[in-house]
Order: sequence, then structure tokens, then C-alpha cells
Amino acid sequence: MDIEQYLQEKRKLIDEALDKFLPADNQLPIIYESMRYSVFAGGKRLRPVLFLATAELFREDLEGILPVACAIELIHTYSLIHDDLPAMDDDDLRRGMPTNHKVYGEGFAILTGDALLTYAFELIAQTAEKEDKSLVLRSLVEIARAAGTEGMIGGQTLDLFFEGKKIDSQTIKDIHRRKTGALITVSARTGAILGRASEKELALVTGYARALGLAFQIVDDLLDLTGDEQKLGKRVGTDRERGKATFPAIYSEEECRKMVVDLYTEALEYLVPFKQRGEMLKKLADKLVFRES
Amino acid sequence: MDIEQYLQEKRKLIDEALDKFLPADNQLPIIYESMRYSVFAGGKRLRPVLFLATAELFREDLEGILPVACAIELIHTYSLIHDDLPAMDDDDLRRGMPTNHKVYGEGFAILTGDALLTYAFELIAQTAEKEDKSLVLRSLVEIARAAGTEGMIGGQTLDLFFEGKKIDSQTIKDIHRRKTGALITVSARTGAILGRASEKELALVTGYARALGLAFQIVDDLLDLTGDEQKLGKRVGTDRERGKATFPAIYSEEECRKMVVDLYTEALEYLVPFKQRGEMLKKLADKLVFRES
Repeated sequence: MDIEQYLQEKRKLIDEALDKFLPADNQLPIIYESMRYSVFAGGKRLRPVLFLATAELFREDLEGILPVACAIELIHTYSLIHDDLPAMDDDDLRRGMPTNHKVYGEGFAILTGDALLTYAFELIAQTAEKEDKSLVLRSLVEIARAAGTEGMIGGQTLDLFFEGKKIDSQTIKDIHRRKTGALITVSARTGAILGRASEKELALVTGYARALGLAFQIVDDLLDLTGDEQKLGKRVGTDRERGKATFPAIYSEEECRKMVVDLYTEALEYLVPFKQRGEMLKKLADKLVFRES
Repeated sequence: MDIEQYLQEKRKLIDEALDKFLPADNQLPIIYESMRYSVFAGGKRLRPVLFLATAELFREDLEGILPVACAIELIHTYSLIHDDLPAMDDDDLRRGMPTNHKVYGEGFAILTGDALLTYAFELIAQTAEKEDKSLVLRSLVEIARAAGTEGMIGGQTLDLFFEGKKIDSQTIKDIHRRKTGALITVSARTGAILGRASEKELALVTGYARALGLAFQIVDDLLDLTGDEQKLGKRVGTDRERGKATFPAIYSEEECRKMVVDLYTEALEYLVPFKQRGEMLKKLADKLVFRES
């Protein structure tokens, strides 16, 4: 199957599930409108697609685990809303649209992020009605860790702490590994876990996703430096303005591009043992690494 | 047992567990210091005590469910940190100490709240290693709902939405039921659930906690009106200044006090079938309703 067709199909599946789990006609329209605004603001659905694509290596039925795919996207969305707040990155635009607090105000934006995070865990726990309870609990713990101080929040903490400060390459890698890498990695891992992958298969998937996650973030850093504002839907050059910890801040553009290619190659090596079955994960890596937005 | 001795014993149990789950020597000192600052800022531990006291109606061993008690306190603490932010209630003092964002800044305060909320769900899920998985999952779903848009966040949303607006008694009850009532009620409910209470017993516990939760909040409203700043550790009269939705905003002080007594009486009626076993929950209600801070 063509990767574009595959992505379209999977995104439709995810968007329909998100629409079902976030009903527009809720009794509390204020917060639900704000949650839906950010969730349906044109995200690429990278993490839930990666989750589903990995799960498909090991199982056919995806229906039962769709809530987990949605939960991961809700956690990603919450992190963007809080990250865009004036006290954090102070961003006005995201994917060409005003950020949540620009539309609903800071107070509701904070609550909206909190609500998405809370609801994500409810959704994961509810999958246990049909899926294996141990595997769901294991996935929930892994997702909480990836989203927490050991992962995403830890990365944002370091990011905020080191803003404008001198930083070494090891710290930047650590920030990226936590800030974006952890949630990308856990998306693939939980897809494999809920697919009853063996520990050996899980290790391969983890290696693939770790390399891909870091490559993805370096590409992100490069796009902020050299990307097209129109295509990206946001201002570029803001990382440098703020003295953000990024790869291009300490490596040349050429070095960064070499790292991306090396990481991409590394990611694909982890897929070799899956042979033909790993085809879609390979195409997904192509898509994410060689992108312009 | 004397209620003061009981509270002291339970608080010690809870504080020791919190200290264990939030290690001070973590690799990421910035965020852990901030988490510990707010968690150990002198909270009454009402919710985890209520959780443990209810569980004790049905089981002797509390060790295995201590992480859930801690998780509930972490969720309560996160809600206070976010609620105190300038974009929300803009409070500088809490329990006589500077609020989290006053010490660590708004960015870290937002992340600290996010971290406590995320970690709470990890802690709950981890109890399943020793406790019954179905009961843990049910508790997790109930806690997420009580903390989410149907409960606490929904209450805060309405609270923010109605600030300075005219409001009827039904809406105020709804806000209170969600904002503080839901987490208090779920503390008792999950204590009962993890104690393997019957559905009938669970309904009694729920009735008790609902009435107690509302009484607790009306007392809170009254203390903001007539309380002692020294004893409360925060400024009083701030609800009225902000045009907050409170009971004293639409009822006389006398009417409010009558409601508190009626709710207290109602709460105790739910304990009757437990006979002597319900003694500690009765004393807890006394303590919470007839308080000065």
C-alpha cells in the first residue's frame, strides 16, 4: 500500500475515534469546544499513526486499541497547549491557527490541557474492558512515564531551565530524548505491547522509534532554522531568538543533516528482522525524516 | 481511638509514602523540588485520610493501596497549583506560604502541576502489581472522571466562566459538587472499591461523602467570609472581591450554617448501617464540618 493512502486511512480512523471520544454536544460546551479546537487543529497524528502501524506488525484488529491511540494524541495536544502559554514558549500561532490561549484565554487554556491529560488516562484504562488488563496497565504506566518527569515534562523542564544558557551536546540530546523522543518511543512500544510482541520484538521496535524520534526532532530544529513559514504554519527562527537548546545551536547545518541520515539508517536497521512486514514503518520513517513541514 | 490520634497516625502514613514516591534526590532536582514544595506545604490530607478511613471499613491492610491515597493527594495538590496561577485565581499565599508560581515562576508551576497529575495515574496503575487489576482499573477510571471535565476541571471551568456573573443556587451547587465534591466523593468510593465493598455499601459511602463534600465546601465559603486569616494562612474575603460563585453570595450566613448542619446530619445517616464500624468516619465528619481553618 502507498504510504499516502495508508496515512489517510489511519488518520481517518483516528479522527473519527477522537470525534467520538470528544463529543461536541457535551453539557459543558466551554471546555469541550476548547479541547476540540486544539485536537482538531490539523495535527499530523504522527504518534497515533506510529502506534497503530506498530500494533499492525503484531495484530490485525485495531478497533479495540483505538482509545489508546487517541489518548496518546490527547497527551501530545495538551503538551502543545501548555507549551504555547505565555509563561512557557509564548507562541501565538500553531499550524497556521491561533494557539489555544489566544482564542480561549490563558485560564481556559490551562484547564483544557489539564482536561486532555486527565481524559487520556481515563481512555487508556477503559480499553481494559475488552483488552488484556495486564497489557493495558503496563501500557498506561509506560505512557505516564513517557509523559512525566522522566520523559516529556522532564524535557520541558530542562528546556525552560536552559533557555538562554550555555549547553553541551549531551544535554541537548537528553532534552530531545525526553521532550519529543519519549512520547514517540512509547507510541511504538505500547503498539507492540498491546500487540503481544515478544520482548525481543519490543526491543527492536524501541530501537527503531528512539532513532526515528531523535531524527524527527533534529529535522524540527532544522525546519525552524531554514523552513518555509507558509508550509510550517508558524514563525521560523524563534528557537534562536529565545536561545533554545537545539541541535543547530551547537552543530552546523551539515552536521545536523548527517546526524539525521545516520539516525534514519539506524532506525531502518532495527526493522530488518521484520522483513516485508516492516515495510510501512520504513515508509513512515521516510515520510517523517524527509519532510518540509 | 481518638480522632486526633487517628489523623496523626494516618497523616504520618501518607506523608511517609509521599516522601518515598517523590524522592528528593531525583536526577531532575528543579521539578522535584517544586513538586515536593507544594505537596509538603502543610495540607490537611483530608482526601487520602478519607480514602484510608473508608477502606478500613472493609479491609485491614492499607499498605498495598497507599499509592492510591498518595495519587489522590497529588491530584488535589496539582489542582491547587494551577488554580493559584495568575490566569486563574491569582493567589499569592496558600496555607501561610507563597504559592508555587511565586517561588518557582509560572512556567515551572504549570509543569509541576502537569507532573503531579501525570505521576498520580502512574502510581494508581502501579498498585495493580499487588492489588486486584479490575478494581484498580475501576478506581483509576473513577478518579480520572472525578478529576476531569465531569468533575473537578468541569467545576473550575464553570467557576472561571461565571466569575462576576449572576448565578443561581442550582449552578453554585453544581460548581461545588464538581469542583471539590467530586474528588472528595471519589476518595471515599475508591477506598470502598479497593476494600471490595458491596454495591449497596458503596452507595452508602457515596451518600456520606457527597453530603460531607458539599458541607465541607460551604464551610470553606463561610471561612473565606468570616474566618481568621491567621488560622487559615491566606487572605479572606477574596471570593467576594472576585465575584466568585459561593453559597454566601446568594444565601445568608444563617441559611448557610443551617445547610451545613443538614448536610452533616444527612452524611451521618448514611453511616447508620455500619454501626460501630462507622465511628471514625463520623468523627472525621465532625472534624471537617466544625473547623476554623
